[in-house]
Amino acid sequence: MKFLIIGGDAAGMSAASRAKRTMPDLEITVLEKTRDVSYSACGMPYNIAEPERDIEELVVRKASVFREKQGINLLTGHEVTLISPDTKKVSGLTDKGNDFEVSYDKLFIATGGTPIIPDLPGFDHPGVFALKSLDDGRRIKTYIKEKNVKKAIIIGMGYIGLEMCDALRNRSIEVVMVKPGPIFLPWMAEDLSDVIRSELESHQVNLFPGHSIQKLSLTDGRFSLKCEDLTLEADMILAAIGITPNSDIAQQAGLGISVNDSIAVNQKLMTSDENIYAGGDCADAFHVVTGQKVWVPLALRANRAGWAAADNICGKNALLPGIAGTAVFKVFDLEVARTGITEKEAIEFGFDPVGVAVKTRSRAHAHPGSKTIHIYIIGDQKTNRLLGVQMVGNEGVAHRINAAAVALHGRMTVEQFSETDLAYAPPFGPVWDPLLTSANLLLKKLKK
Amino acid sequence: MKFLIIGGDAAGMSAASRAKRTMPDLEITVLEKTRDVSYSACGMPYNIAEPERDIEELVVRKASVFREKQGINLLTGHEVTLISPDTKKVSGLTDKGNDFEVSYDKLFIATGGTPIIPDLPGFDHPGVFALKSLDDGRRIKTYIKEKNVKKAIIIGMGYIGLEMCDALRNRSIEVVMVKPGPIFLPWMAEDLSDVIRSELESHQVNLFPGHSIQKLSLTDGRFSLKCEDLTLEADMILAAIGITPNSDIAQQAGLGISVNDSIAVNQKLMTSDENIYAGGDCADAFHVVTGQKVWVPLALRANRAGWAAADNICGKNALLPGIAGTAVFKVFDLEVARTGITEKEAIEFGFDPVGVAVKTRSRAHAHPGSKTIHIYIIGDQKTNRLLGVQMVGNEGVAHRINAAAVALHGRMTVEQFSETDLAYAPPFGPVWDPLLTSANLLLKKLKK
Repeated sequence: MKFLIIGGDAAGMSAASRAKRTMPDLEITVLEKTRDVSYSACGMPYNIAEPERDIEELVVRKASVFREKQGINLLTGHEVTLISPDTKKVSGLTDKGNDFEVSYDKLFIATGGTPIIPDLPGFDHPGVFALKSLDDGRRIKTYIKEKNVKKAIIIGMGYIGLEMCDALRNRSIEVVMVKPGPIFLPWMAEDLSDVIRSELESHQVNLFPGHSIQKLSLTDGRFSLKCEDLTLEADMILAAIGITPNSDIAQQAGLGISVNDSIAVNQKLMTSDENIYAGGDCADAFHVVTGQKVWVPLALRANRAGWAAADNICGKNALLPGIAGTAVFKVFDLEVARTGITEKEAIEFGFDPVGVAVKTRSRAHAHPGSKTIHIYIIGDQKTNRLLGVQMVGNEGVAHRINAAAVALHGRMTVEQFSETDLAYAPPFGPVWDPLLTSANLLLKKLKK
Repeated sequence: MKFLIIGGDAAGMSAASRAKRTMPDLEITVLEKTRDVSYSACGMPYNIAEPERDIEELVVRKASVFREKQGINLLTGHEVTLISPDTKKVSGLTDKGNDFEVSYDKLFIATGGTPIIPDLPGFDHPGVFALKSLDDGRRIKTYIKEKNVKKAIIIGMGYIGLEMCDALRNRSIEVVMVKPGPIFLPWMAEDLSDVIRSELESHQVNLFPGHSIQKLSLTDGRFSLKCEDLTLEADMILAAIGITPNSDIAQQAGLGISVNDSIAVNQKLMTSDENIYAGGDCADAFHVVTGQKVWVPLALRANRAGWAAADNICGKNALLPGIAGTAVFKVFDLEVARTGITEKEAIEFGFDPVGVAVKTRSRAHAHPGSKTIHIYIIGDQKTNRLLGVQMVGNEGVAHRINAAAVALHGRMTVEQFSETDLAYAPPFGPVWDPLLTSANLLLKKLKK
């Protein structure tokens, strides 16, 4: 059987390796557009933060390992431009300008996403970056060094924008952040996002939400970014306003399309064509809280989708229940985490949400070094189900969120979650874990 | 209505405060044997570790606050010696030698536990300590200072023994640990307990499991502890071989008794007498994994039991599902955590357990500062349920265990747990969280 994979990043290479382990005789071909496969994309901001670290450290497994040790036919520099489901063939162009055509029995589309760059004058300059591919990382690192960048503008205030803000400040580069939307972090309760805003401001980061971007120009090697009511100057520009799923070839092939133009897949990762699977940043998923389709491009989901698609192609029956939308990032001295849905999303999906903000401590009463933990927890007044948790603090946030994520998978009520037996020792938290304290308070509000 | 509480520590004072908030007119009396109420018992080792810290810092709320601000009739120095369920009265003796008698409509027994001191010659010396009450903490701190203690013997290798070992080493006191049982940490997989053993040894702690204790003698102010095949010398002795539930008065009153002589209660915390509730270290609980009765004296459980008993006494219907046996402690640079049951316990309760030991990393590929995390995960081959997780590492253990604890409450299978959406960012873990890696490996073993 011929198993063809389009895309050699997290989802694609996970699928290739998994399928090869399960069925060593499977004929596996991977077509990757760039020259890079299997690297830690999420590690890039942390690597960029440190000039002396080599960005090639982020390569997890070299192409040669996949080819020689695993026996996977990995073709880099191969961009697929057409999928023909009727003839079970894909075709495209290599980076050397040659046409190619490959046939398949089963196809896995793992084309990932493309960062959004404003479609405005001046944004085609080489000093304008996004951060998605390893090559983006390389180019940013080289540019900062060669141009001796002193000031950067980050457009967007999402996870990557904030991680890159931290990275650039670590290199003493002045940072301003700007975005069209009026709210700093719209997915987060204001009590918590205010904590992050203060942290950024205490690191001399200027934030300008609510300014639409109009034009970028370059004078004497310095960018001038014209926004609504504002003009900002800098040596480099980072666009961090999100990505779009690479679903064009899937759409042209007539496959079903879903939320945010992602490729629609079922719990088996199968598209509307039974011989074609899709996973990772190009495809959708089910949300365990809403039960509905959602598009959340995150790394674990991509790896897991690769495995599940491979398992199904190898004749197993792997069903992915879905995602909880769990995420964590570090920004300066803060850990920021979330899982589940926001109140706004809850209303859209027919819940009757109520939330409470709680300020509690990271260590026990009288234990030295205790820090504040801020939690926002959301429950449903109709069913009493836990819907989501957000958390910000200097310590004890990153892994704590996972208890709430598991509760969402278990479709627990707030009461059930409040009754869970969480670990306690004075260096790690109060007797009542911050999550339990927040659940107890939410419970009171739900019972009213 | 007269609500009487025996015991003024975690369970008792939680119940008193909770009941008073719910029903301000309730006539609440608390009878506490000692002079101390509401202190962080678990904080004592960490306080003892630092000579300059005042142990009175551990008092969470003073007796006067309960009396004057909350209107609770709190009587310290009142030891109850008899409960008379027929007449609904309790009687006893004050520490000034006066008899007392108090009547009740509803009674909550929160008498806690008593540390076990070997019933052997020489153990009645004031240089022999256990660590349970705040007064124990005070006396240990004073003794170390006044006698200029240079070397201590800790009998027992449980949580408190290990925490106290760390505390004493922090004060440059030489420590040897001895116990009769042959296995260092019998509740932990050997791959993991070996890591803790090495940590102790690297801090110059000598461990002597498998030596029964025979006699303690004192010569020229120095203890000599005679054990089987071994004689140890030291300036002080700490007995940390566990506690027994204070259930004597409950037994004498004819109440039902359970595991380890703890007081039997139902999910409402009600004893075999409908007017008498019990909770905290003196009472039993249900285990969420086995569904059976268990006796695990831990702080969160005590606080929660106090609340639930108060709620039921105030006419609410509060049912506690039970405990998962989640615990965490710090020993030197290690975080040690567990939840659920061991393989040995699993066999006793009719499961068909299988476990795997996994060594993984605390941070992502190529992220600096990554440490090893050791996990042991146990599942049931009959039902595929997750049964327990143990974890040891320098970071990322204490809160990570809670995700597994919530999965146990949700009665998840190993597969369901392996599919949960846990948070990922390079500073906090690999893409596949160590818990997921361990669940994935266990899943393979279960599917065989």
